[in-house]
Amino acid sequence: MEAKRVSESRTFMTDLVLPPDTNVHGTIFGGRVMAYIDKIASITAMRHCRRAVVTASSDSLDFLAPIKVGEAIQLEAFVTWTHQTSMEIFCRIQSENLLTGEQRLTATSYLTFVALDDQGKPVVVPPVLPETDEEWWHYNTAAERRETRLKRRKERSAAAISYAH
Amino acid sequence: MEAKRVSESRTFMTDLVLPPDTNVHGTIFGGRVMAYIDKIASITAMRHCRRAVVTASSDSLDFLAPIKVGEAIQLEAFVTWTHQTSMEIFCRIQSENLLTGEQRLTATSYLTFVALDDQGKPVVVPPVLPETDEEWWHYNTAAERRETRLKRRKERSAAAISYAH
Amino acid sequence: MEAKRVSESRTFMTDLVLPPDTNVHGTIFGGRVMAYIDKIASITAMRHCRRAVVTASSDSLDFLAPIKVGEAIQLEAFVTWTHQTSMEIFCRIQSENLLTGEQRLTATSYLTFVALDDQGKPVVVPPVLPETDEEWWHYNTAAERRETRLKRRKERSAAAISYAH
Amino acid sequence: MEAKRVSESRTFMTDLVLPPDTNVHGTIFGGRVMAYIDKIASITAMRHCRRAVVTASSDSLDFLAPIKVGEAIQLEAFVTWTHQTSMEIFCRIQSENLLTGEQRLTATSYLTFVALDDQGKPVVVPPVLPETDEEWWHYNTAAERRETRLKRRKERSAAAISYAH
Amino acid sequence: MEAKRVSESRTFMTDLVLPPDTNVHGTIFGGRVMAYIDKIASITAMRHCRRAVVTASSDSLDFLAPIKVGEAIQLEAFVTWTHQTSMEIFCRIQSENLLTGEQRLTATSYLTFVALDDQGKPVVVPPVLPETDEEWWHYNTAAERRETRLKRRKERSAAAISYAH
Amino acid sequence: MEAKRVSESRTFMTDLVLPPDTNVHGTIFGGRVMAYIDKIASITAMRHCRRAVVTASSDSLDFLAPIKVGEAIQLEAFVTWTHQTSMEIFCRIQSENLLTGEQRLTATSYLTFVALDDQGKPVVVPPVLPETDEEWWHYNTAAERRETRLKRRKERSAAAISYAH
Repeated sequence: MEAKRVSESRTFMTDLVLPPDTNVHGTIFGGRVMAYIDKIASITAMRHCRRAVVTASSDSLDFLAPIKVGEAIQLEAFVTWTHQTSMEIFCRIQSENLLTGEQRLTATSYLTFVALDDQGKPVVVPPVLPETDEEWWHYNTAAERRETRLKRRKERSAAAISYAH
Repeated sequence: MEAKRVSESRTFMTDLVLPPDTNVHGTIFGGRVMAYIDKIASITAMRHCRRAVVTASSDSLDFLAPIKVGEAIQLEAFVTWTHQTSMEIFCRIQSENLLTGEQRLTATSYLTFVALDDQGKPVVVPPVLPETDEEWWHYNTAAERRETRLKRRKERSAAAISYAH
Repeated sequence: MEAKRVSESRTFMTDLVLPPDTNVHGTIFGGRVMAYIDKIASITAMRHCRRAVVTASSDSLDFLAPIKVGEAIQLEAFVTWTHQTSMEIFCRIQSENLLTGEQRLTATSYLTFVALDDQGKPVVVPPVLPETDEEWWHYNTAAERRETRLKRRKERSAAAISYAH
Repeated sequence: MEAKRVSESRTFMTDLVLPPDTNVHGTIFGGRVMAYIDKIASITAMRHCRRAVVTASSDSLDFLAPIKVGEAIQLEAFVTWTHQTSMEIFCRIQSENLLTGEQRLTATSYLTFVALDDQGKPVVVPPVLPETDEEWWHYNTAAERRETRLKRRKERSAAAISYAH
Repeated sequence: MEAKRVSESRTFMTDLVLPPDTNVHGTIFGGRVMAYIDKIASITAMRHCRRAVVTASSDSLDFLAPIKVGEAIQLEAFVTWTHQTSMEIFCRIQSENLLTGEQRLTATSYLTFVALDDQGKPVVVPPVLPETDEEWWHYNTAAERRETRLKRRKERSAAAISYAH
Repeated sequence: MEAKRVSESRTFMTDLVLPPDTNVHGTIFGGRVMAYIDKIASITAMRHCRRAVVTASSDSLDFLAPIKVGEAIQLEAFVTWTHQTSMEIFCRIQSENLLTGEQRLTATSYLTFVALDDQGKPVVVPPVLPETDEEWWHYNTAAERRETRLKRRKERSAAAISYAH
């Protein structure tokens, strides 16, 4: 299976933040941002593997600055690493004040997706080929993030099940 | 400031999964689940502190089983720990097949929220009082999760900024 | 067919009232409340009979107090009575001011649902077993409400048809 | 205050039934129909009194025939009667199969609305002037429906409060 | 194929403009108006030909006056002309201030739709029979609008393709 | 006022086409595409002038190929020309089959926007500086499109008013 360059599936999205997306302080709900992230990341994953995909995990997400009603939300996502049937996607979210042009980093996140064949079974994806320094940095640190994820998943499931109703 | 029992702000939500919430395999988008989690967790946080709140972070989220169109999504959220102006909320998501009654654990997550006063400034929240074994388990392990979060936030911001466009 | 306890299908839902749900006075549209009621009642009916269901009727609905933007809407629904292929569901709606904790009764309503088999034909549902005083009160007064409904339906259809365009 | 003819505020609405509005059998949710009814009835009430309005009550609603995905929903609403600060609105809902032209009566309903002044206080509305036979029929039977509503409201509130949590 | 009168498919729609439909000046987004136009025009086209339809083109649209949040949007659409498998639909949009009754012309537009058979292939539609002066005016000027459209489509496609990425 | 390069405000958007966006043939409603176009074009206009904007007109729109449910919609918009207080925006819409990567031109359109100051009055915008061949082509042909628009607007308004109800 031939490797694909990161740039072949990189995706950009820009949208307006409207009143129903915001709380009483006029700043976007965290859940709206998460929904945008999942959408752009899944488009990116599909562009890399040309398959249907499902979200397997979302890494932690820190909200560094709020986005206000009337501002634009900008998202950028790219594939950082693959492992057999799964892809890790990095996502950067920024706000843009459309009246001043000021941009601020809202959050960054990693998500993992699994590619599915026509019967809905996991299927191997093409490897990814980093080119820029930024792409190589995410690529080189991906295996360690995967270890953390596997460990965390095991611990969390155990706790959740032991106290399940 | 008097401590509040966990049970005073525990929140339950049940909803139907409809076609626009689902992908081509008829399973719910990860981003929709994240939006539900943020909403129920923010209601829980407001019930604890009786203030407006903003999402500060969402911990990692592993999707253990899909939810299908026509099934119900069930969410439960409660406050596990507080730290000055912030609250940690635990959220458990389950699916229910309405035709068979079968329930499955979809995911669990921790989110942190900051309480805001009328000027939008962070404000101290009441401590939380665990009662059940499950509540004590989350309470006793909260400080360690906070350490992990602070460390991760520092590392991630550094990386994001050094490669920002 | 074995009777099922009311508590086995009782359903709770909590949601935030947002700007698009409200009129110029910042209070929720009656139609939004009706849509919530129909949704929670249909989940409750499906949990009782483990079948697909359709709404057959909604009894009158009095709005006793408005719900404001930023408040939570709380809904609770349970099966009160069954009659061959139909179920009567009681629904109570309350508002909660999330900043003060004050709760107010918004409205109550009865709805009836018909269970459908795989071909979309009405199918007999299990009887319901009341346990609490409140459940018995609704159970004992249900047959009378059914009589009123049948009478009203006959009268109303006649009038509607005689003036149809 | 001068009387206004019924025809001055009569309102028509036509919309397409789409997948998110429908259940697994492809028929519209009762709650969606209720939301349409409340919207068209509130526009009608505003057209009659030229004030902001709130829904005070919705009479019972019987679903006589389902509306399927891809069909059109047609609504017609007009003022039938007024009483000081309140208006009674009649609403007729029909489905139209857009491929055959077949129309079916879905439901009819009465709603009551209260007019509000700029401070949100109830304010007297103009009387209504019926012209057609159908309009007179609804006008002449309105006082009796009001009696039923007042009686029901008293009974229902009592029951709801005595069992409130 | 027998001609159908314009009045047989004429369609009316009335809706409330809500906060999520509006920009920071509280006036409706142009894109929301366009979505309403396409919906009412497609219902009109389906009523004329009793077939599924797809939008082939939308003529230019000038916004003559804004519609404000809280106002009603009124739409009227009718078939003006047909040509083999396509129909031209005229659409008039007005705003209504519900507190004063003042109406203003928002925009007018022509759209063309193509009728599709069960396999999704274009299929011939019935001719249309104008009756009023207004209907005849649109009918008599339709062939010229079609010429303009064909010419424009050719020019625009050429330009778009020659600079496509 | 200093000219701004076209590239400074060029905007990209990518989104998934979901079931509620589509008709019975599974292809996107024309009205949904128009709503996307208006949104991306208004973001572009705001980025150019750093002001609030309102849509003044949308030129004709030809749908060259449908977009199917599950495909991605890609939009690109840039400022082509300005005239005192107004900006012309060109928008190109393409579909992408996410499973094959095949892209198709859906439509192109020109919209005009007017910049508003804090009181909602039209305000002069910066001139635009084309750089690429494509940008110059749109720039050089803009004045002619404006003439056509002015002529059309005069004719259309006259016709609309003479037949208004």
